[in-house]
Order: sequence, then C-alpha cells, then structure tokens
Amino acid sequence: MHENPYYTAEQHGDYDLFGLGDFVLEHGATLRNASLAYKTFGRLNKDADNAILFPVMFSGTHAAMVPYVGKDLALDPDRYFIVIPNQIGGGLSTSPHNTQGPYSTAAFPELSIGDDVRAQHTLLTDHLGVKSLQLVTGWSMGAQQTYEWAVRYPHMVKRAAPIAGTAKTTPHCALYVDVFSAALCADPAWANGTYGSASDVYQGLRRMARVFAMMGASAELFNKEHWSNYGFSSVEDFLRGFWENWFLPMDPNNLLCMAKKWRSGDVSQHKDGDLEAALNSITAKVFVIAFEQDMFIAEADCRHEQKMIADSELISIPSQWGHFSMLGVANEDFQAIDASLARLLATPV
Amino acid sequence: MHENPYYTAEQHGDYDLFGLGDFVLEHGATLRNASLAYKTFGRLNKDADNAILFPVMFSGTHAAMVPYVGKDLALDPDRYFIVIPNQIGGGLSTSPHNTQGPYSTAAFPELSIGDDVRAQHTLLTDHLGVKSLQLVTGWSMGAQQTYEWAVRYPHMVKRAAPIAGTAKTTPHCALYVDVFSAALCADPAWANGTYGSASDVYQGLRRMARVFAMMGASAELFNKEHWSNYGFSSVEDFLRGFWENWFLPMDPNNLLCMAKKWRSGDVSQHKDGDLEAALNSITAKVFVIAFEQDMFIAEADCRHEQKMIADSELISIPSQWGHFSMLGVANEDFQAIDASLARLLATPV
Repeated sequence: MHENPYYTAEQHGDYDLFGLGDFVLEHGATLRNASLAYKTFGRLNKDADNAILFPVMFSGTHAAMVPYVGKDLALDPDRYFIVIPNQIGGGLSTSPHNTQGPYSTAAFPELSIGDDVRAQHTLLTDHLGVKSLQLVTGWSMGAQQTYEWAVRYPHMVKRAAPIAGTAKTTPHCALYVDVFSAALCADPAWANGTYGSASDVYQGLRRMARVFAMMGASAELFNKEHWSNYGFSSVEDFLRGFWENWFLPMDPNNLLCMAKKWRSGDVSQHKDGDLEAALNSITAKVFVIAFEQDMFIAEADCRHEQKMIADSELISIPSQWGHFSMLGVANEDFQAIDASLARLLATPV
Repeated sequence: MHENPYYTAEQHGDYDLFGLGDFVLEHGATLRNASLAYKTFGRLNKDADNAILFPVMFSGTHAAMVPYVGKDLALDPDRYFIVIPNQIGGGLSTSPHNTQGPYSTAAFPELSIGDDVRAQHTLLTDHLGVKSLQLVTGWSMGAQQTYEWAVRYPHMVKRAAPIAGTAKTTPHCALYVDVFSAALCADPAWANGTYGSASDVYQGLRRMARVFAMMGASAELFNKEHWSNYGFSSVEDFLRGFWENWFLPMDPNNLLCMAKKWRSGDVSQHKDGDLEAALNSITAKVFVIAFEQDMFIAEADCRHEQKMIADSELISIPSQWGHFSMLGVANEDFQAIDASLARLLATPV
C-alpha cells in the first residue's frame, strides 16, 4: 500500500464508497472488503427509472465527468438521478495502491470490464434501488463499460451512448496500450511495480504522457498550434503543462491495472467470441459517438460496430482534440457531446 | 567504433564510396576523411542532364530504393542515370558506429539535412559530372532531402517529388521522433550511447520498433488483419517478423543520429525562417505525394506546403500501409508511386 495524496476527495471532490464485500473477479481472484467509489447527482424518482449511469475513462475519476452534469445540460440532475462510478483500479475504488495484503500494489489481480460492470450493477440495484437506466454513457474505457452494460443487462438499459470507445478492443488500440505501458515500465524505477513511491517513476510517467500526447490529440492541434488557445506558451509547455501534469501524480500500478483491463475489453465473450451476435443482442437505442481525428479509436472502428447494433446511429464529431475531445477543453466539443446526449435522451424508446 | 555485420554490401548489395575529405558540418564539427555511400544505375548522357537523384529514408539504405529502379519502371536505367545516395549517419556512409576518434559512436556530431545535400551535390557535380537533375525524389527523410535540393540548388532540379515528407518537420512529427527515440533510450543498456554492442540494446530497439508499427502503418491494416496478406500469422508475428526484424540489427547511435537530423529538417532556414518564401523559391515542377492514413505526415501537412509551391500538384495515394506505403509491400502502392513518378517525368519542363 502506498499513501498517495492524489487519490483523495481533496483532489477529486466528494464521493461515496459502496462496500462490495469479498468481490470475486472474473479471472478468479477475490478482492476482500472491496469498495466502489461513486458520485451521484439528483434523486431517484418513485418509479426508480430516471437513472443515468456515467462510468469513467482510463486514468480518470468522477471529477472528469462532473462538468457534463448540470441544469440546462443533457445530464440534468433536476430530472435524472446521475451515477458516476469510479473504476476499480482507478485510485478511489479498491486499487493496487490502496490494497494491503497478498494482492497489494504490484500483485493486484487482473481486472475485466465485466468486473466493473457487475460491481456497478450491485451498487445500482442492491444499494441505490435503481430499476432501469434511461441512459448509460461514457468515454473511451467508459464506452467499454457502456457496451458491457448494454450486452450484459439489456433489460435495464434503455439508451446507450458509447463515446470514442469500442465493444471489443481493436488490435491497433491494443498495440497502443502496449506501447504506452512499455514507455512507463521501461523506467528502471518501476521495478516490476515494487517502487517505493509512485513519484520515483517520474521518468516513465513523463514518457507515457508524451505517448498520450502524440496519439491523444490530433496532429492538427500540434501543427496549427491550437494549444495556444488553451493557455499554453509552446509545444513543450503544452506537453508538460497538460499531458505530464495529468499523469505525473498518478500511481503506475493503478495505471497499468486499468491498461490491462482496457486491452482485454470484449463483449463478444458473452456470445462465444461472436461480436456480431453480442452487439445484435443489444436492445437499447444506441448513439455510437466517434471523434474525427481520433487516433486511439478511428471513426471506422466505431462505425464497424455500430452497424451490428439494431437500433443505432453513428454520430461523428469534428474536433482538433481527437480522442481527448471528451474532456471538453474546447467548448464546441463539449457542446456537441452534450447536444448528442440531449437528443438521445429526447428520443422515445 | 563497432563492427556491425548489418552495414555491409552482403546485406544491402554493392555500393560505391565517395570520399568527402574533411567534411565540415553545418553545426561546426568536421568529419575527417568522411565518405558517402551511393549506388548508381544507368549511364550519364553526353549532355550530363539525364540524372535522377533518389535519396533514402530514416533507417534505410539504397537497398530499400532499388526495387523502384528497372526497365519498364519510371526510374528506367536505360534512360536515366540514377543515383541513390545513402545518408550520412545511415550506416554505410560515415556514421556513428564506423567512426573512430573523438567523434566516434556516442560522440558523433549532430547532422543536418543540408549536410547530406551538400555532400550529394559534391558527389554529383565534382565526381559524377552531373549538370542537372531530371528528378529528385525520396520518401520521408528522402523527401526532406528532396525539398532541400529544390530550395538550395533550384537551377539544378527540374522536377521534384517529395513523398510522405515535409520541407519543415511539423511539431507533431517532432513529437513522434522524440517518442520513438525515448523508447530506445529508455533501455539502460543504451547507456547514453556507450553500449558495448548494438545488440545489447535489443529491448530498446524492440520497443522502438513497436512505436513504428503503431504509427507507421494504418489502424486499418491492423484491425482488418491485412497483415495476413503478407505472410504473417498473427499480430505478434507481424510485430516481430516485420517491425522488430527491421530495426533489431541496426546501431542505436546511427538511428538516433538520423532521428535528430529528421527532427531538425527545415528549408525555411534558407529564408530567415520564412517557409513560404523558401517554398516559393522552388523553380522545379513538383509533385507532392502523400499517403492516406499516414500518421507520421498527414495529407493536410503535405497539402499545406504544396500550396506554397508555384508549379506543384498534390497527389494522394490511398493505402493501408500509411507512412510505410513507400516500401511497396502492397503491389498497388508500388504501382501508384511508380505511375506518379512516370507522369512527372513525362511532364515537360
């Protein structure tokens, strides 16, 4: 276990912890006395059917999702009961850095997207009393959880909006995960996860951040110097001030735990490896949202899966921010995403 | 100095060496008794005006260019005198691994694209007796040399075809160079270039190869498993058999020397940093050739520069191989490139 001031309410805002008890993972390990960190907005209505689930992306927490929740936004807490679950392994839920005993830190077990979704299902049904979900939506690894929900619990999911993420991780995206993981692990200070302090691994974290910068925004954003619109004074200032600043306070084992989960995401596991059958089983109304110039998840990859979903539509959002459009750094990206979610929520099902 | 069996005629085919004497580099160092490796096809005509110059890319040698030379091809040695100069630092010319004395291996001085082009100019004019060039063409770093020729020696260059490369390295491409260089240098065996044997740095070379794989071909090639058309049995087999196989025999200091040169490519240096003025000074007929899905050099980056060149045309070649289309692994890529060069050569100037 490592103390890490980054994974605190001071950094990410208040949240709740739901006790999962001794949580058996799909790969067989048991996380004893596990907990799921989550944040809610609004109230569940009498019919328990006004809930929205908004799971988070790689390396993120609920704090990254909160800007999309508000009066006059699609995710309006006056109307919906909005639940943002943090990932297991994400730092606020049970994670490598905060686990003691045989599964601590470097020995933390491998997780699956299904583990998160099962934990979220228990939270929603047993603890919060939610009966059905008006919408499940999330970005990147949040989209993986969205797909998993739509395939695993179709009766509960009325609408789904996977954003810049796939139901099955593509080979190219898996290679990307391998490349950024290798950039981190190449740091001798990583020491197979047995580092004394996360900050010892700063060279690996910085190197990984630059791989994210290279693939996470568009070439256009760099080459037309659009970073200057967001308070950065040079490419180097953008690399340090935005990308390295994001990853430097994090725990390498947490990041690698999420990366493995990301890499293994695949809803076809529910249909003996048949992706088409799995996506065909989705009964929700689905907006598959892609970002133009996204180098993690190409629009073609999103479209490929969207075509296998019966009641679905592909929405392609132009943005210089590529995969990271979801962060809403550019206001037009935020508006386009919010408008798509509003339109989906207004669609009768 | 390191013996390295990779940098030999046995591996790359016969070539000639041109003595550059004590060659003063643009950054100030002097490479004493330097030599430029080159390969020629065909014969110079009486007017000394049927030459074509075909400089090579990062990590390549003349061997990578040779398939484009042949009867019934655009670069027909029955018609043209074709000169393929290897890069300084590329392993066959004077390079870190084969240099002795104060500039050996890790202490090899920084090169510029202009250094190569000046050396080539001396070879062509003083040694080979070439008076003008029907065409200068090259891929990636070969395109950088092509632009440098067209700007530096406009009176000699009748036609130019920079392929998947830019006159000024873009910030995103510079970041790419930094990322793959960091992947190599993160290997403790690299030891700031003082490794005992290049093969000691195999972990760094393999890691760098995977960064190239991720960015060098298209996501489509991976996600639609088009690698299976080229004799590979799995993604892992493709990564090892194609990408790692390419880089593993090479010398890390040679690669890093070329990488720095790549990063600093910028013809605007000839016009006090004014790229438009530099490109405007080109008098050659220019085909700027871009590859669709190229993640090193986006089509938009090629188009941006092409628009500043008076007598120019943008040709965009669709390919699953992205930046690496030039290798002609897919026959249709080879045909498209050859056809573009043939059309340019057939254009009166």
